[in-house]
Amino acid sequence: MELKRIRNSGLHTKVMSAEQACDFIEDGMTVGMSGFTRAGEAKAVPKALAEKAKLNPLKINLMTGASLGNDLDKLLTEAGVLARRMPFQVDNTLRKAINDGKVMFIDQHLSETVEMMRNKQLEMPDVAIIEAVAITEEGHIVPTTSVGNSASFAIFAKKVIVEINMLHKPELEGLHDIYIPSYRPTRTPIPLVKVDDRIGSTAIPIDPSKIVGIVFTNQSDSFSTVTDPDEETGMIAKHLVEFFEGEVEAGRLPSNLGPLQAGIGNIANAVMMGLLDSKFTGLSMYSEVLQDSTFDLIDAGKLDFASGCSIILSERINAQVFDNLDKYRDKLVLRPQEMSNHPELVRRLGIIAINTALEFDIYGNVNSTHVCGTKMMNGIGGSGDFARNANISVFVTKSIAKNGAISSVVPMASHVDHTEHDVDILVTEQGLADLRGLAPRERAIEIINNCVHSEYRGLLLDYFERACERGGHTPHLLEEAFSWHSRLEQQGSMKA
Amino acid sequence: MELKRIRNSGLHTKVMSAEQACDFIEDGMTVGMSGFTRAGEAKAVPKALAEKAKLNPLKINLMTGASLGNDLDKLLTEAGVLARRMPFQVDNTLRKAINDGKVMFIDQHLSETVEMMRNKQLEMPDVAIIEAVAITEEGHIVPTTSVGNSASFAIFAKKVIVEINMLHKPELEGLHDIYIPSYRPTRTPIPLVKVDDRIGSTAIPIDPSKIVGIVFTNQSDSFSTVTDPDEETGMIAKHLVEFFEGEVEAGRLPSNLGPLQAGIGNIANAVMMGLLDSKFTGLSMYSEVLQDSTFDLIDAGKLDFASGCSIILSERINAQVFDNLDKYRDKLVLRPQEMSNHPELVRRLGIIAINTALEFDIYGNVNSTHVCGTKMMNGIGGSGDFARNANISVFVTKSIAKNGAISSVVPMASHVDHTEHDVDILVTEQGLADLRGLAPRERAIEIINNCVHSEYRGLLLDYFERACERGGHTPHLLEEAFSWHSRLEQQGSMKA
Repeated sequence: MELKRIRNSGLHTKVMSAEQACDFIEDGMTVGMSGFTRAGEAKAVPKALAEKAKLNPLKINLMTGASLGNDLDKLLTEAGVLARRMPFQVDNTLRKAINDGKVMFIDQHLSETVEMMRNKQLEMPDVAIIEAVAITEEGHIVPTTSVGNSASFAIFAKKVIVEINMLHKPELEGLHDIYIPSYRPTRTPIPLVKVDDRIGSTAIPIDPSKIVGIVFTNQSDSFSTVTDPDEETGMIAKHLVEFFEGEVEAGRLPSNLGPLQAGIGNIANAVMMGLLDSKFTGLSMYSEVLQDSTFDLIDAGKLDFASGCSIILSERINAQVFDNLDKYRDKLVLRPQEMSNHPELVRRLGIIAINTALEFDIYGNVNSTHVCGTKMMNGIGGSGDFARNANISVFVTKSIAKNGAISSVVPMASHVDHTEHDVDILVTEQGLADLRGLAPRERAIEIINNCVHSEYRGLLLDYFERACERGGHTPHLLEEAFSWHSRLEQQGSMKA
Repeated sequence: MELKRIRNSGLHTKVMSAEQACDFIEDGMTVGMSGFTRAGEAKAVPKALAEKAKLNPLKINLMTGASLGNDLDKLLTEAGVLARRMPFQVDNTLRKAINDGKVMFIDQHLSETVEMMRNKQLEMPDVAIIEAVAITEEGHIVPTTSVGNSASFAIFAKKVIVEINMLHKPELEGLHDIYIPSYRPTRTPIPLVKVDDRIGSTAIPIDPSKIVGIVFTNQSDSFSTVTDPDEETGMIAKHLVEFFEGEVEAGRLPSNLGPLQAGIGNIANAVMMGLLDSKFTGLSMYSEVLQDSTFDLIDAGKLDFASGCSIILSERINAQVFDNLDKYRDKLVLRPQEMSNHPELVRRLGIIAINTALEFDIYGNVNSTHVCGTKMMNGIGGSGDFARNANISVFVTKSIAKNGAISSVVPMASHVDHTEHDVDILVTEQGLADLRGLAPRERAIEIINNCVHSEYRGLLLDYFERACERGGHTPHLLEEAFSWHSRLEQQGSMKA
């Protein structure tokens, strides 16, 4: 049964336990691992590595597509295995180690990791560990629920360990489209012109002699913890749908809006859910992660096609999707994150990018990553890949957090991930600010009038007016610019 | 003599004075004008418009490629003509009006202005005013020393005024390569794969019936004010050349480095001059502006080909180049700024981007635009188009300014144009910081050790160490982060 999944019979001898596979991983190595938004990560080998490290301490440089599920980053952190980690994470334990300066975390645009590696500006993996549903006759690797950076990691690595996860349906094969850019200086245009174009292969093409170990596993991806829309996220969706309706009416968007990208998490998922009740049909997605909302929209006949680089679903919908893959087969493709997020494609396709802000300021600079300018939450992820080149770049957030102790709109963003140049539309439950073609002083009025919670609106307007008296293209009072954050740190609330 | 430059004889009746042409420009209109880095701007009509406005006040929304020469922004500002201005400027008088909030300035990535216009997110020009060397038999416009946004402005505008500048050599014809992206959703890849590829036409293709006026002029572009390298810029060049040598030796760069982009101004020009004395040959440029250094490198046999969107030269070299265009014809091309700066092409070609920072912080965030976070200098220009997608993104600056009263390296950048994610290499006369693959705390050490002037190094290290004690992925003391800028504003120096 298991060996049927290894269609290249020459590789049958490579089957081993996760513990044995760990022996290929040595102290100081760079390891490239599958996994993106807690989908499709290698599961058994990293867990075994964490166990092994308790007895025989070792440190590695761990690269993935994005975040890992099944508490792997927690286990690896607790076992002291992580010296360096890139390009994204979402784990509480690892987050604390990063903020304590114990793990060196490199927070990157997700389209860039393997590009830098290809150009030898990052270490190539000594070992790649890739979750698969099968190995083909040619010895090529068929990924599972994410592609992420798996293809390039496997291509670049000296040694490859494959984890064949029997719990993933073999029907996943055929869903992936593996395209790798050619090397400079003879690189050619990426030949993708529609969201449903297939331009590559369905498996990761590597020399099978690099496969040094094959481990069988039988463990589910972590379920998504996405929650149902609440009153505020519902309002955010409503504002955005109304905006889209206006854009179509004004002839600035086609009636199907063009390809949509939505970041991970509750707010972006709620926004996509908001399209369920809209009049829009013929929708498409060109995104990195496909969440519950993607499949609800397909089921409702609203969404024609979704291109992503991973699928992560909640328990509500997970079985219904993966047990009925044939139903979705002609409506889905999973690509390497270098392709799902590629600036060339984002610009060409004219994507509407919807991402979540941690905070933004009165001029529209967005902080996606750092609490009070210092503490890393997760990482910038793909938001920059999309926001910079999108047809319309939208950032969404609730206007307040922690029962109003925090305003998401502040005088000056305490960390900037997306500059004012890359932010077109800001939405909170309060309303929507359309910043296109506005100068900073005009942006401030639009943002203060539309996005700020009433408890903070007067304070922000007062800051802005006093800053304008002092002058400047982007008026600020530098000595006060972070006073809200300082109050939060010292008194537990931004309120004066 | 003059009429020979209008090869479509049906347009001979459109010849008129600049004053007459002004009648097409009405209060409240959006005007798109040629001109990029003070090269190839329309000269007579805007000057006449400034005169006319003294008697009959009017306000327009003025869009150009980038900066204008011949004091036009000054004249238009003084005449109160400018309500709105985008996407770049370098004029003292206009700068003051922007910082006083009197002119609304929209500071944009230079590749994006016409893209937003094409998608109807910015007003299309009512009138375009384009400097030309000739009008072809088909009624198409042959630009002069810049292409900038001229092609799209002329294509989008309802009415087009052409200024034929007799002082520009007719031999400029053939130098340009006008390619305009197709409309979404059927946009195709841009078919450029080498810096010297020609993918478009040599003139701007418009319906000649849109040409409502033709004005003859006879006035030079403003000369570049670029100065010879000094000791500090010479050191910056030296550090960068040594870095390039190391990259080639390590196999990370080809022996000709790949295409180079260099921002405008003394420091970037000096860096390019530094390549004159290097061992590198077979160089190429894929840049926005071609300055003195470009032609010095061609003359020295070092540079094989230069693609840009404008040429601006100092008095030293100007005549020598434009009187000998045949010598450079097969080594030059001028493209629309949307193409010279296009993210798709920057990423594909693997450009080394060299741009100037106003200041940067210990984590590598770069401020290119705002003095003390508030006062606009010029604008972000194309630096973001290049830095985001470059193979190597370099920012250069002198470590101190105003005799040491200002440190260009600060605890926190007072405005962020380029986030840490987009900055690979920082260079001052002190040395070079290689930030690739480093976490923020590691970046800080690299920057403090290599780029900071000795007068400020201890202070910065002290800030960093105290911030680390408080913790965080990107340690900061928010209440102190701008104390250097506040000291500068209050006491005239950043020194404690």
